[in-house]
Amino acid sequence: MSYFRHHIFFCLNERPAGQASCAHNGAQDAFDHCKARVKAEGLAGPGGVRVNKAGCLDRCAGGPVAVVYPDETWYTFVDREDIDEIVESHLKNGRPVERLMLPPDIGR
Amino acid sequence: MSYFRHHIFFCLNERPAGQASCAHNGAQDAFDHCKARVKAEGLAGPGGVRVNKAGCLDRCAGGPVAVVYPDETWYTFVDREDIDEIVESHLKNGRPVERLMLPPDIGR
Repeated sequence: MSYFRHHIFFCLNERPAGQASCAHNGAQDAFDHCKARVKAEGLAGPGGVRVNKAGCLDRCAGGPVAVVYPDETWYTFVDREDIDEIVESHLKNGRPVERLMLPPDIGR
Repeated sequence: MSYFRHHIFFCLNERPAGQASCAHNGAQDAFDHCKARVKAEGLAGPGGVRVNKAGCLDRCAGGPVAVVYPDETWYTFVDREDIDEIVESHLKNGRPVERLMLPPDIGR
């Protein structure tokens, strides 16, 4: 069994001013919101969900991005409603959110 | 297929002075060394290996720690030789390193 049922990593990488990066596109707010929602839903902890900060996930062309393991599900998101849907559907109920998935050819 | 065959996350969390944390126990050096070794071996990139920075992975009692996904393999390590073994055995040849695995009951 996985130590965490769903382990989601948010890219919070910040590049120098003038360069696009997840941190300049709402990633910190999305991370904070996800962490708060997971806690409020009672999902946090071993056997449950872990919401994690990460450095550059190297799929910048689709940023801001997050990845859920061990599911291998990559997401791109725009606002808190997207995060709410990932929490409710995927992290709580195990149903990945198709509409927010990163296309497989999106890289750096 | 997974975007990265092996995606390893190192906890680089640093707590205030006086408190134990992975960052105070060689995590940054281990991360740097792993990243350099993976690059030197030609393993880096999509379809291959990604070496990632992460915040606290919440298994501090076994720190410094790293986790390989989608394999769900958690490691604790002491020195560069441990990292070399993880790179050579697991990340290059797909054989997890039993002697470095984090016991399942190790948490925060």
